[in-house]
Amino acid sequence: MIVELISVGTEILMGNIVNTNSAYLAEKCASLGFSIYYMTTVGDNEERLSEAIKTAIQRADIVLLSGGLGPTMDDITKETVAKVCDLELVEDLRSREHIQEYFAKRQLTNITHNNWKQAFIPKGATVIDNPNGTANGMIVKTGECHIILLPGPPNELKAMVEQSVLPYLTTLQDAVFYTSMVKISGLGESFVEDKLSDLIAKQTNPTIAPYAKEGEVHIRVTAKGKDEKEAKELVKPVVHEIHKRLGNFIFTDDENVTLEQNVIELLEKHELKICTVESCTGGLLAGRLVNVAGASEVFKQGFITYSNKAKRKLVDVKKATLKEYGAVSPQTAKEMAKGAALLYNADVALSITGIAGPDGGSEEKPVGLVYIGCYINNHVFAKEFHFTGERSKVRESSVANALSLLRHSIIEYYEGGFKQEI
Amino acid sequence: MIVELISVGTEILMGNIVNTNSAYLAEKCASLGFSIYYMTTVGDNEERLSEAIKTAIQRADIVLLSGGLGPTMDDITKETVAKVCDLELVEDLRSREHIQEYFAKRQLTNITHNNWKQAFIPKGATVIDNPNGTANGMIVKTGECHIILLPGPPNELKAMVEQSVLPYLTTLQDAVFYTSMVKISGLGESFVEDKLSDLIAKQTNPTIAPYAKEGEVHIRVTAKGKDEKEAKELVKPVVHEIHKRLGNFIFTDDENVTLEQNVIELLEKHELKICTVESCTGGLLAGRLVNVAGASEVFKQGFITYSNKAKRKLVDVKKATLKEYGAVSPQTAKEMAKGAALLYNADVALSITGIAGPDGGSEEKPVGLVYIGCYINNHVFAKEFHFTGERSKVRESSVANALSLLRHSIIEYYEGGFKQEI
Repeated sequence: MIVELISVGTEILMGNIVNTNSAYLAEKCASLGFSIYYMTTVGDNEERLSEAIKTAIQRADIVLLSGGLGPTMDDITKETVAKVCDLELVEDLRSREHIQEYFAKRQLTNITHNNWKQAFIPKGATVIDNPNGTANGMIVKTGECHIILLPGPPNELKAMVEQSVLPYLTTLQDAVFYTSMVKISGLGESFVEDKLSDLIAKQTNPTIAPYAKEGEVHIRVTAKGKDEKEAKELVKPVVHEIHKRLGNFIFTDDENVTLEQNVIELLEKHELKICTVESCTGGLLAGRLVNVAGASEVFKQGFITYSNKAKRKLVDVKKATLKEYGAVSPQTAKEMAKGAALLYNADVALSITGIAGPDGGSEEKPVGLVYIGCYINNHVFAKEFHFTGERSKVRESSVANALSLLRHSIIEYYEGGFKQEI
Repeated sequence: MIVELISVGTEILMGNIVNTNSAYLAEKCASLGFSIYYMTTVGDNEERLSEAIKTAIQRADIVLLSGGLGPTMDDITKETVAKVCDLELVEDLRSREHIQEYFAKRQLTNITHNNWKQAFIPKGATVIDNPNGTANGMIVKTGECHIILLPGPPNELKAMVEQSVLPYLTTLQDAVFYTSMVKISGLGESFVEDKLSDLIAKQTNPTIAPYAKEGEVHIRVTAKGKDEKEAKELVKPVVHEIHKRLGNFIFTDDENVTLEQNVIELLEKHELKICTVESCTGGLLAGRLVNVAGASEVFKQGFITYSNKAKRKLVDVKKATLKEYGAVSPQTAKEMAKGAALLYNADVALSITGIAGPDGGSEEKPVGLVYIGCYINNHVFAKEFHFTGERSKVRESSVANALSLLRHSIIEYYEGGFKQEI
């Protein structure tokens, strides 16, 4: 089965937003064993959109459209699909109720007339519920081609794909596919690829594909079988081999498990309470830990000590340390972590202090210099990092590496360390 | 002038990487006033790539290809362009020397024969130097169409665009474009569009396009003129009219100014120091404030009080309040804000407490219920919100609305409030 993606939105053509939906949808399609030959992005323009849709219908069995289902006048995806397929738009009562409930739930009263536009669907279309917004999706069958319309906002699109679209696509796929996502922290992509190059080179079934993420590498292992059992059996030995080579640098084989989740689980397992102290990341590290529902078991409090005074008053960094070595130094990072752990009796504390830029850099301490401090098992240490990219990138890298550093420290101190010579 | 982007690479179709090159190139083109009608992604497949190139040549004045200039057998962009344009490949001596120098600089001796493949160009093409890699780019003129080939790695592509491609494109542009981005906080997209529907309906030059962001609406106003002065003159009255209708719900006309930046500027203007106290958002609010370089002038410290104990110990929330009303209540939100402001002598404090889910919800306090507390000008109040979506979305919405709430409070207390009846 051939899938074609069409992203609709002038804001993509203007470069206002990066098209992450396409990568997400492509990854999902690959995991189901569908092939994508073309991705197209087109603006909110009826003539060009309908041309793109007609072309895709000719080339593909499934056309996935994202964007242009909003309430405003320039949202025309649904209308254009209806025209191309020669279907009239009819009001879908369930969608109308959905909009009503959505506004009621948020205690919003000003439902403007253009909101009701979202209750209309091409006649005969199957509605895809949207748990996160007013724009329901829909499936339109034309000839042998399945056209699937989804809204543009990633949180809406993803929820609908997980909940409705993947199950539907699975019914269109004769074979069954099983995927394991082996996630690695603390190793670079090219290093991981090198370690697995022979496996990747001779891949057939299962297929093996590496994905580079911030501070992580994910290896997707997907096998095709006549049933799930057969597909699973094909995946198992490959995942086993990857584990043999990368050991506990791997933190999960489960697509849905995040690094912060793994870290929280490790802290729970060893009954360690953690406290965070952040300067340049300003709360993003704590923010990622709190991503994990139930983090409250091990994470009680965190501090953003952005000023020197806050570093002194809140986590007991010595005035002399700040004076002698500066706020961005291994000494300060260590005192931040140790001070927080001792003051607020945490077993583990992570601290981040650095120069995120664009200003504040110097010859000796350039933009991108970050120290991550860690207090664990009555030891305290700080590690130096040099990150590249703009301010937000430096901060994101700092958080990812802090989580990775903590995971490795827990493994070193509480799980007998790493077995591999890497 | 119409530009079309073609991204070449099976790794994009597989979802292995997010296509950031397209957004980057699109933004550059928009800033030069070029229109992009289509972006296409196609794999390293000669038949489909040549089809995509032929289609683009018919539709566009300029075709920007990225990817597929590497040394390996499956890099075929250059070869395919040559075939489509019926040009032979000839060795370019400067490119050959460039490859030699590149390897020499890095003391790499093993120049394999396929590296020399990168020295070949379609006959008559103009070479674009690549300061960061061996793959030079090239410009091929066919009929009236300019085909520009660039390598896929972003650091190589960007350097070549800044250094060579933008200057070249500028020579092709006769008209000049000017854009204002009117950004609105605290009003919904459909509501804003309703207010501006007549302007949007009769738009020609300038064009007017709304973009929905989390907790914000952006209105892009772009005009075309013979010079910048004329373009600016065309944009001015439209922006003025939008201001007349939405007043100080608008926080900027500048594409590069963020809501957090505007909030920081307002705090600086009125010499207000802010402190944050977060529960369910776990630091994301502080994280956004610290996005702003120079936030340190007004933001010194923030707290993540995830446990009840932390709420009591760090920001003085009364045990009785937590007992009687619970952690997620307007009373607790108010005490968090007031406690932090008084304890750490801040002029303004923002607090967030809520149920982000997926668990922890109840009949009376459902998932998505969030209270945002604000202490300002010796007043304290809390506002109730009902957000939808998954955990991360609820937290993101909370942060966006907290910034919006703070901005509105500053305007109410320090700038004479809002003039519009909205």
